[in-house]
Amino acid sequence: MAQDPWLLTPGPLTTSMTVKQAMLHDWGSRDAGFIAVNDRMRQRLVAMIGGEGTFSTVPMQGSGTFAVEAMIGTFIGPKDKLLILINGAYGKRIEKICQVAKRACATLEWAEDMPVDPNLVKLALARDPAITHVAVVHCETTSGVLNPVAEVAQVVADAGKKLLIDAMSAFGAIELDSRKVPFDAVAASSNKCIEGVPGLGFVLCRVSALQQTQGNAHALTLDLFDQWQNIEKTKQYRFTPPIHCIVAFDQALNEHEAEGGVAGRGGRYRNNCKILVDGMRRLGFETLLPDHLQAPIIVTFHMPADPNFQFQVFYDKLKDRNFVIYPGKLTVADSFRIGCIGRLGETEMKAFLGVVADVLKEMNVKSGAPARKAAE
Amino acid sequence: MAQDPWLLTPGPLTTSMTVKQAMLHDWGSRDAGFIAVNDRMRQRLVAMIGGEGTFSTVPMQGSGTFAVEAMIGTFIGPKDKLLILINGAYGKRIEKICQVAKRACATLEWAEDMPVDPNLVKLALARDPAITHVAVVHCETTSGVLNPVAEVAQVVADAGKKLLIDAMSAFGAIELDSRKVPFDAVAASSNKCIEGVPGLGFVLCRVSALQQTQGNAHALTLDLFDQWQNIEKTKQYRFTPPIHCIVAFDQALNEHEAEGGVAGRGGRYRNNCKILVDGMRRLGFETLLPDHLQAPIIVTFHMPADPNFQFQVFYDKLKDRNFVIYPGKLTVADSFRIGCIGRLGETEMKAFLGVVADVLKEMNVKSGAPARKAAE
Repeated sequence: MAQDPWLLTPGPLTTSMTVKQAMLHDWGSRDAGFIAVNDRMRQRLVAMIGGEGTFSTVPMQGSGTFAVEAMIGTFIGPKDKLLILINGAYGKRIEKICQVAKRACATLEWAEDMPVDPNLVKLALARDPAITHVAVVHCETTSGVLNPVAEVAQVVADAGKKLLIDAMSAFGAIELDSRKVPFDAVAASSNKCIEGVPGLGFVLCRVSALQQTQGNAHALTLDLFDQWQNIEKTKQYRFTPPIHCIVAFDQALNEHEAEGGVAGRGGRYRNNCKILVDGMRRLGFETLLPDHLQAPIIVTFHMPADPNFQFQVFYDKLKDRNFVIYPGKLTVADSFRIGCIGRLGETEMKAFLGVVADVLKEMNVKSGAPARKAAE
Repeated sequence: MAQDPWLLTPGPLTTSMTVKQAMLHDWGSRDAGFIAVNDRMRQRLVAMIGGEGTFSTVPMQGSGTFAVEAMIGTFIGPKDKLLILINGAYGKRIEKICQVAKRACATLEWAEDMPVDPNLVKLALARDPAITHVAVVHCETTSGVLNPVAEVAQVVADAGKKLLIDAMSAFGAIELDSRKVPFDAVAASSNKCIEGVPGLGFVLCRVSALQQTQGNAHALTLDLFDQWQNIEKTKQYRFTPPIHCIVAFDQALNEHEAEGGVAGRGGRYRNNCKILVDGMRRLGFETLLPDHLQAPIIVTFHMPADPNFQFQVFYDKLKDRNFVIYPGKLTVADSFRIGCIGRLGETEMKAFLGVVADVLKEMNVKSGAPARKAAE
């Protein structure tokens, strides 16, 4: 079997063959074997945030955004108001969810290359007492910036408000400990740093908060309260679960544990990120973010100024050599992105850098350097 | 590798090894290879209802119910009113969706062992001119009854109303031709009669009707209009698609075609159903439905009256012998269900009957006969 392309993207990601092989079986969704797998998955995710006894995993069919929308729709009731912290497309998506689901909301916005600022959150909460909840994105995949979730959480808790976290691309690789960081819910998915296949989102919910949400949801399928009650009472999903995806996720959790959990997984990604950034800088490329703001998840690079550089050609030539990268999503600058997550390590990152050097040569691009920022 | 249990259920189903093996690869969701697979899938589903040029496939991450809720939320606008035809749990679920999504609706109900009656639909439409749409379930999996969708469609069209079909457990095995049967949308999923793995729903939408639905949806993720526009314009999903499930679905569509499409697939299921019903009757069991109302999808049997028969023991002993059956969902009678769909044929159905006979003997159950109906 030829090697699949290496996916240097924010997802779908490269997964291990053992994760994919877990999908070679059919399971009855009501049968004891699958129920045991599902229970184990839910417990292990809770353990990952130190939430034993206080949190419960509510799986949500679909993708990560289905989980985020379910979290917003279930936790934000008709009398609540959500303050959304926005520094990229995923924060904006939460605003869009509120508009469609008709949830009261306010927003605070930052530039895409800046982290959200807890001090401004504090001010905003003081100014608008109607706000009951705050939503923040842990790693904003638009730029790759790491938001200071712990500091935001403290400000929100101090103001007596509740925090909802979209930790999609960070969960499982960047620590989030519910015993240290106060929050009510965190949404993520099977296909990011835990390296399962796409098809399942989940929300880890503080049980005492989830118990207050009955009847809030704006859609039957996206009702976390109903999903939770049903799974707790009957051990079964309300609607057909993506069995193969869940069984693969269970295997991905085995492999996550074997690698040393969040610390081990995060360590590999930080190493991938460092190799990538150092190597690309040697080729003249510049990152959007300074290193202290960069999450080890996905890196945004400025588009090179060399007139011989055309992104589509670069992309295609990398693809021909079995590496898939990702277009930019910034509104502020012309850019592209390279992911550090998935079943990739030092070998693949170094091989990738060699391929980039070859492709630049072939394209007759002397350097990856962007136009000076002043010129933009 | 030991043989997985044969799933005689309404889903998740037994799928072919070649379908599952299609999941052994990782694909980038924005890459040309996957885009081609996705396009082909969408076109083949449209062709299955003879909808070329008039219908478009809108895939929906999640499960079949996500597709049904998306269909209801997208097609039923704020000024519309939906008449729901109910003869089982799946009709009731559409009512529940309307309640949560705050859609105006009315219902017509029949007993679970009766098909819906087009004449009563005609009367209901004449009495309530506010009704704009009608929803019907093609095969009501609660009992296994086949609803007369073509006759209902004609009545609805004659009244100048629009029809939405939940064809979940029938699609791909029971003919539905959009050139003969007038409807605006039909929802189904990857994991029923097309024999893919679960994780994807889809709605085949009449384009002229779909074009009128902008802004209707009650949830961002469930917005078929937005999903359709995005896939048409960019060839990409708005939110991460379940890549592996879609690639497996493409393989399942290959195998569906190779078997002779809807006619071939339906033929195998009808044969499975006949073998099952004949064999079970020989063992004394009685079906809930007379043969002319029975869809060849799933069969409901009355619970045997023999005091030695305990369903959980029966279920477990069958499971020990590698066959998984399904509990009943009827409110009117104590029952259980056995599916005829999935990658099963004559060999498996006959083996199953042999196993049932053995298990009854082991349980010291003389006959599968239920108590006389009069005694219920």
